[in-house]
Formats: sequence, structure tokens, C-alpha cells
Amino acid sequence: MAAVRLGEIVARFGGELIGDGDRTIVQVASLEQARPDEISFLSHPKYRTQLSTTRAGAVILSRQAAAASPSACIVSEQPYLYFARVSRWLNPGHTPPAGIHPTATVASRLPASVSVGAGAVIGEACTIGENVVVGPGCVVGEGVAIGADSLLHAKVSVYPGCLIGRRAIVHAGAVIGADGFGFAPEADGSWLKIPQIGGVIIGDDVEIGANTTIDRGALDDTVIEDGVKLDNQIQVGHNVCIGAHSALAGCVGIAGSARIGRRCTVGGGSVILGHIAIADGVNISAGTLVAKSITRAGNYTGTVPFLEHADWLKNFARLRHLDAMADKIRALEAQVARLAEQEK
Amino acid sequence: MAAVRLGEIVARFGGELIGDGDRTIVQVASLEQARPDEISFLSHPKYRTQLSTTRAGAVILSRQAAAASPSACIVSEQPYLYFARVSRWLNPGHTPPAGIHPTATVASRLPASVSVGAGAVIGEACTIGENVVVGPGCVVGEGVAIGADSLLHAKVSVYPGCLIGRRAIVHAGAVIGADGFGFAPEADGSWLKIPQIGGVIIGDDVEIGANTTIDRGALDDTVIEDGVKLDNQIQVGHNVCIGAHSALAGCVGIAGSARIGRRCTVGGGSVILGHIAIADGVNISAGTLVAKSITRAGNYTGTVPFLEHADWLKNFARLRHLDAMADKIRALEAQVARLAEQEK
Amino acid sequence: MAAVRLGEIVARFGGELIGDGDRTIVQVASLEQARPDEISFLSHPKYRTQLSTTRAGAVILSRQAAAASPSACIVSEQPYLYFARVSRWLNPGHTPPAGIHPTATVASRLPASVSVGAGAVIGEACTIGENVVVGPGCVVGEGVAIGADSLLHAKVSVYPGCLIGRRAIVHAGAVIGADGFGFAPEADGSWLKIPQIGGVIIGDDVEIGANTTIDRGALDDTVIEDGVKLDNQIQVGHNVCIGAHSALAGCVGIAGSARIGRRCTVGGGSVILGHIAIADGVNISAGTLVAKSITRAGNYTGTVPFLEHADWLKNFARLRHLDAMADKIRALEAQVARLAEQEK
Repeated sequence: MAAVRLGEIVARFGGELIGDGDRTIVQVASLEQARPDEISFLSHPKYRTQLSTTRAGAVILSRQAAAASPSACIVSEQPYLYFARVSRWLNPGHTPPAGIHPTATVASRLPASVSVGAGAVIGEACTIGENVVVGPGCVVGEGVAIGADSLLHAKVSVYPGCLIGRRAIVHAGAVIGADGFGFAPEADGSWLKIPQIGGVIIGDDVEIGANTTIDRGALDDTVIEDGVKLDNQIQVGHNVCIGAHSALAGCVGIAGSARIGRRCTVGGGSVILGHIAIADGVNISAGTLVAKSITRAGNYTGTVPFLEHADWLKNFARLRHLDAMADKIRALEAQVARLAEQEK
Repeated sequence: MAAVRLGEIVARFGGELIGDGDRTIVQVASLEQARPDEISFLSHPKYRTQLSTTRAGAVILSRQAAAASPSACIVSEQPYLYFARVSRWLNPGHTPPAGIHPTATVASRLPASVSVGAGAVIGEACTIGENVVVGPGCVVGEGVAIGADSLLHAKVSVYPGCLIGRRAIVHAGAVIGADGFGFAPEADGSWLKIPQIGGVIIGDDVEIGANTTIDRGALDDTVIEDGVKLDNQIQVGHNVCIGAHSALAGCVGIAGSARIGRRCTVGGGSVILGHIAIADGVNISAGTLVAKSITRAGNYTGTVPFLEHADWLKNFARLRHLDAMADKIRALEAQVARLAEQEK
Repeated sequence: MAAVRLGEIVARFGGELIGDGDRTIVQVASLEQARPDEISFLSHPKYRTQLSTTRAGAVILSRQAAAASPSACIVSEQPYLYFARVSRWLNPGHTPPAGIHPTATVASRLPASVSVGAGAVIGEACTIGENVVVGPGCVVGEGVAIGADSLLHAKVSVYPGCLIGRRAIVHAGAVIGADGFGFAPEADGSWLKIPQIGGVIIGDDVEIGANTTIDRGALDDTVIEDGVKLDNQIQVGHNVCIGAHSALAGCVGIAGSARIGRRCTVGGGSVILGHIAIADGVNISAGTLVAKSITRAGNYTGTVPFLEHADWLKNFARLRHLDAMADKIRALEAQVARLAEQEK
């Protein structure tokens, strides 16, 4: 990696430099681990104590924190965002060379700029954009479209007919376009499979985590709008729509036909039931079950505190008797009111 | 796709046709998206308002809803099931051609009707039925048996010795027969792995979702009975038994040796603890932790409502003090009884 | 499998034999399914009733249970651990032959003892130890190191630069080293991806379940210490550290930068939030959300009991009014105190 001077960083990304502009930086690092040729950042006050002991050559931080910096620093109103830009500049990633690996099986015409890894399979009638990378072991079904500059890591499966936008990043093991879970009950208790003839439409700038699954629609399409970020092991049911720039943490499950608004965040392990709608700008806490629609932006939570097991046994057993407790309180209120009346 | 006349549909599947039997239909569609050459259905009253605006050429619906239909309609007692049959007729699916892809590695004798995709691997001593499709990138271990007409989508892993019945559909990334999670604690706090020598036995007409995992048994087998439907990202621990025609939604986790009855349904994200038994005909709501056996058919739930975060903070903090609240109520009852006594 | 005599077992593993040392055993089995040439075990009193009906040729059990054994038995203070040792002796597993499958793509120098399965891909500059098995369809990125005697089952993905220790067992579909979920919010509501330049460091004797995902660190590394056991479909976020000999059951989700101590156990489906620390020797019950740090060893739980749905409706609706219930109790206490005062 080439070294850059602090002066070059500020010239490129703005901010105010306090210290020697000729100091060279080769990488970003955490406050705790940074070496003198690395740049770090401080965005959360929780970590401010690390500022006094860091060996970083420079730190990106807010105006308020700058005074406490023992090293050179770059003052920014958004240290985390500034740091992200610097890190992206220093770590552009490296793309595998263009070309089709001899062990790949490709049945569509591809631009010369596309890279197809070992053992990857691309079906017929696919439309693959410039500079797309299809990692080793991927399986891309018939009629799939993938926009320019998208990157599929190893072993991604894309079922026939799915559409992926530009600049997508799809991590290993993700499955896009498997059949939604749709069955009609027969009189004898068995299930009749309903053909899942909808597709999956994924916008631009979407990231999809490892082993995440996005089912195809039953009739209409499953839709992931521009800029959505999905962490690992998320399950997206058929006909779900996730609005632009929403970000969902790991292990979230979304049942069929749920609609999530734009710029929402969903914490890890949450479950969103089917056929409900969540407004734009809603933040769901980790571990929450969303069992009905949410019509207003805001923060929503539905989790229980953990306790030492013995305390939990005592307290949570009461949950089975909450209704009885409420009845007792009502009875007491009536009795006390009567007593107070007699007292007069 | 060939067009069919409404009259042909009714001739094949029954029901009462109201309207022109010569109208042609090419596909099924949702009420919202249907075009005049498509047929839709109405099964849930919630969507009845869409009936007045649909452009569908025909709608499958109940006797009560028929009067409100602006288009041709087919009256059925079970509109959803009827629709499923029509959709299956119009969408038979297309099977890849029989034969072994040149990049596949096959060490067993296969019927000529079998299709093996690019890069798939089939070990020694496997028994593969007629018309089985093994998708690209699948790995089928030694001694596996797969019944006739089963379909493994891309990248399914089947460990050695597992048995899969007829007409199975297994989606991409599913893993069948990995080691169960079994360790004995050593005196020094480390864990000694216990060989998992049981197998996995999967009945006929089972569907297994993308990235779902079904572990092999520790000693005896893990058993999935006929007609079971498993959604995506379900985890089935060792020695679990799931009874015939049960349907489990996405992200369900089932710990070792749990027994689930027949015709049960389990909502998404539920967790079922180990060594418990659930009776036939039990329905578990999404997000429920099943920590003890259920001996009677019925509906069971164990989830908390979500609230706006500020309300949640106020209310759910009380959970840590439920036992104290119950004590206070009891003390109040005693005091009030005493006061009432004195009053006399 | 060769038969062994009970006398040989006791000579090798200790314990007291009651019965005929010349009886031969070919396999381990459950009490319920064992045949006369198989050995079983009894460790949990719950299964003691099976002792009277088992057909096992011998049973491993505790001193107290020995009297009730109808067959030969081996008395041990730790029947389950003893059984594990016997099973490991009888079931050594069988390793695929050394060598690189002709369909594999290998760009690094490997010891002759290594086995690489069909279609596997190993990148440049990897360091692979003696006797390592890389299963069919695995993708091992550039610069990965895997210690001696490790076993990767089919379709494991290891991203570039990750380190795996000795004697690891990694099950099918696991993904090690995908990007952590790190984005900085832009002013327009979109997300800027932060390069994930940390790695994953996995110690010795670690087992990783099917379709489990372990993300690489954002800046520093994600660390899995020696002897950790991870079940299937676990999600480990970036910069998590899991202490030695901790065991996590299926479907656990761990958010970024959480630190789990040594010799902890985490029940299935639990969620551990980011940036918290859990002490050594903590046991978390299944389905618990761990939303703050735990500083002392012990057992912790945070789950709700399930009820029949109708009872649940009645009781759990009260959760939204717990704070109001507490207020009412307080008001009653004040009133009753006043009444009692007047009474005097």
C-alpha cells in the first residue's frame, strides 16, 4: 500500500488538520491497535479514554475531542463518515482479473470485463453488466440480469429470472430467488405446493450478507430497493418489499408480503410477520417481534430483560397470572373506596 | 404458455363458472396485478376491496363473494386450493434435460433419466431414483439414497448415508446430515466430540428450504416424515422427529431429540427446546420459545407485544419486579381485609 | 467394524466391569435401539426406566444405577464421557484419501498428505497443514492458513487471509471471513460501506456448524479461541471474541464487538448485542436476548412462558400496562396507610 501524507488526506476530504501535514499514513486502525504510521478515529465518547494512550499517527475526531488528542488530528463534524472515506481510499479492494476460468460453465454472452471464477455456472440468456465479478462456485440461473460493477462472492445461488442492480455486493452462500413458502391445505391434511412464479428485483447499491436468503414472489415480485443493506443469515419471504436505504442486521426473518419502509433499521434476530406494513424511518430494536403494522416513524421495542435464572423463575412465572393480578388490583380499589366512604 | 379457456378449467377442476366459458387465460396473477388474460383468486375477505378494481379476466372465489365480482368468476368452496390447482396446471415447471454434465463427478450408477448439473459430485454406492435432478454444485455423499422424481436445486449438501424420499424438493444451500452438536465435558473444561453415527431419514413429498440444515442423529436417526414442509434457514438438531404434514416457517430452530407431531404448524423464528414432545395438530405462533412438552392440540403463543421504545422502557422494566408487585398486592389484600373487619 | 471385548474396553478406559469380559461389542447405541452386540449408556436418571427393557449387551452407568442393570455393565463416575471415549474408539471416522482431485483448482503448494475434493478451489499463498481435508466444492481464498489435521466438509467458504487452527472441523456451507456489517450514514440517508480489513483468527480444536457465518473484523480481528464449539446457523459479527471452550447452540446471533468469556454456554436462538462483555463461565438460556454486559459467572435467562393462545391474549396484553399497574398499587398503598392511620 502506498503511503499518503496527512496533507493529502485533508486536501482530498476536507476537515481541519492540526499537526504536521507531512506525516505519512499507510493504513487505518483502531485507537487500541494503531501504529505510528496509521490513522484512527474517535466517534463515540465511550472510547475517549483510549485517546490518551493511542499510538496512532493521527486521529479523526470532533472539535470537542480535538483538544485531548496527543497526536496529529483531523477535525471533522462526522468523524466516522470521514474515517470511512479515508479507509475506502486506502483500501480500494482488489478485483480478480477479467476472464472466464476454464472450469466455469458459461452459456451466455459476457462482456470481456467480466470475471467468472472457478467452477461457476452461468445459464442461458443472462444479461451481465461490465466489470461484474461472479465468484468461484456461483450458480446463476437462466435469464438472470446483473448490473455493472456488481460482485458476487463465492457460492452465491441466483435462481432463474432474478434481477440484480448495479454495484451489488453479495456474500458467500446467499440464495436469491428460491421458491417462497406457499402451500394450500388439502382436505386430507397434506399440502399442495403453489408454483412461485414471481421474481426477485434488487435495486442498485444493495449489499447482501453471507447465507442470506431472498425468496422469489408467489405471483408478483419480491423487491429490494436501492441502497438496502442486509447482513448475514437474513430470511426474506416471498413478496416482501424493503424500501430504499433500509439496513437490517443479522438473523432477521421477514415473513411473506411484509412491506418495510425506506431508511428503516431492524436489529438482529428480529422477526417481522407477514402482510404487515412498516412506515419509513422506523427503527426496530434487536430481538423484537413485529406482529402488526407500524404507521409512524420512531423507535420500537418488544423484548424482555434477562435476569439471573433464579430471579427469572420468580418473576417471569408471574406472567401467567398477570390478568389475575390486574383483577386483584381492581377488587382492592373497590374495597378501599368503600372503606374510605364509610370513614367519612 | 398455451392459453386455456375458462370452460376447460371448470371441466378439469369443477366449480361453477359464472361468465363466458370461451374466455382464454394464460396465467395466474394477483388481483392487483392481473391482466385481462389472467385469472386471480380471492380467499381472504381482507382483499375483497380489490375485487372491484381488478382487471383480471376471471376470479376464483367463494359463493358469498361471487355477487361482487365485476368479471367472470369460478365459484369454489376452497378458492385458494382451486387456484393452486389451476396454477400448477398452467405452470408445470421445466426440468433440466436428463444426463450428466461433463464437469460433474459421479461415482455411482445412475438411471438414464437422471439429470446431474455442472460441477455436482455424487459419491460411491448411492441409489438415485428415476427422474431425479441433482442441481449444479450439489455434493451427495457416499451411500445416499434419493427417491424418484426428487429435485435438488443448486449447492445442496447431503452427507454420507442419508435417505431422501420421493418427490422431494430441496432448495439451494440446504445441508442434510451434518454432525449433530454432541460433546461430553472433560474435567479440564474442554469438550470431547461424540461421533454422530445416526443418519437422516426423509419421507416422501418433503420440501426443504434454502440454507436449511438437518443434522444426522447421534445414535438413532433424525426423521422427517412424509409431506413435511420446511421453509428457509430452519435448523433441525440431531434425533429430532417431525411428524407427517407438519409445516415450519423460516428461521425455526429445533434442538436435539425434540419430537414434533403430525399436522403441526410452527411460526417463523420459533425455538423448540430439546427432548420435548409436541402433540399432533399443535400450532405454535411465530417467535415462541417452546420450553416444555405440549400434550394437546391447539394454538400456543409466548411472545411480547412491541411498544414505542419509551413506553417499553417504562413498562418492561417492571418485569424485573413482578414478584415484588405480587407480594405488594398480597400485603394490601391482608391489610384491607383487616380494615374491613374493624369497620364492622 | 471389528468387534471388541468388554474386557478390552475396561483395560483401555478404566471403570469397573460387572459381567462377562469376553462378551463382544461392535457398536454403541441408545438404550432403546441397542442390540445384544452393542453397548449403551445411562447418564440421565430420566432414562432409567429404559434400563429394564434394553437389549444392549452392556451398559455404561453410575454406581447407583448398576444394581438395576439387567445386562453386563461398566461402572464409571462419568458415564457420558466414558461412552464418548468408547464411541470414538469404535468410530474413528474415515478420511478421504490424500491427493488433489483432478477437477480441483489449487494455486498453493500443499503437503502430500492433504486431500482436496472435487471442484474445490484453493487460492495463492495458502499455508495448509499436514493431513488437512478440503471437501468438495470448498473455496479457500488467498493467503488462508489451515492447521494440521483440520477437516473442511463440502462447500465451506474461507475468505482471503483467515487463519484456522489445528484439528478444526468445519461443516458444509459455513462461511468464514465475509465482510462485517459496517456502514457510515451519509447526509442523504444512504450508507457508505466501510472496508472490513480485519481478519478471522480461529484457534485449535474448534468445530463450526453447517451454514454458520463468522465475519472478518472491521479493523482488528474476529477471534475464536481454542476448543470453541459452534453449532449450525450461528452468526458471529465482526470483531467478536469467543473465549476458549465456550459452546454455542444453533441459531445464536452475536453482534459486532461482543466479547464472550471462556467456558460459557449459550442456548439456541439467543441474541447477544454488540459491544458488550460476558464473563467466563456464564450460561445463557435458549432464546435469551443479552442486551447488557454480564460480569459474574452464573445462569441467566430472559424468556417468556408460552400459553394457550387465548390465555396468552388475556395475560400478555397486560404487559402494555405494567407501569400503570405499579402506579395503582402505589396509590392503594398510600390510601390503605391513611385508612389504617385513621382507624387508630
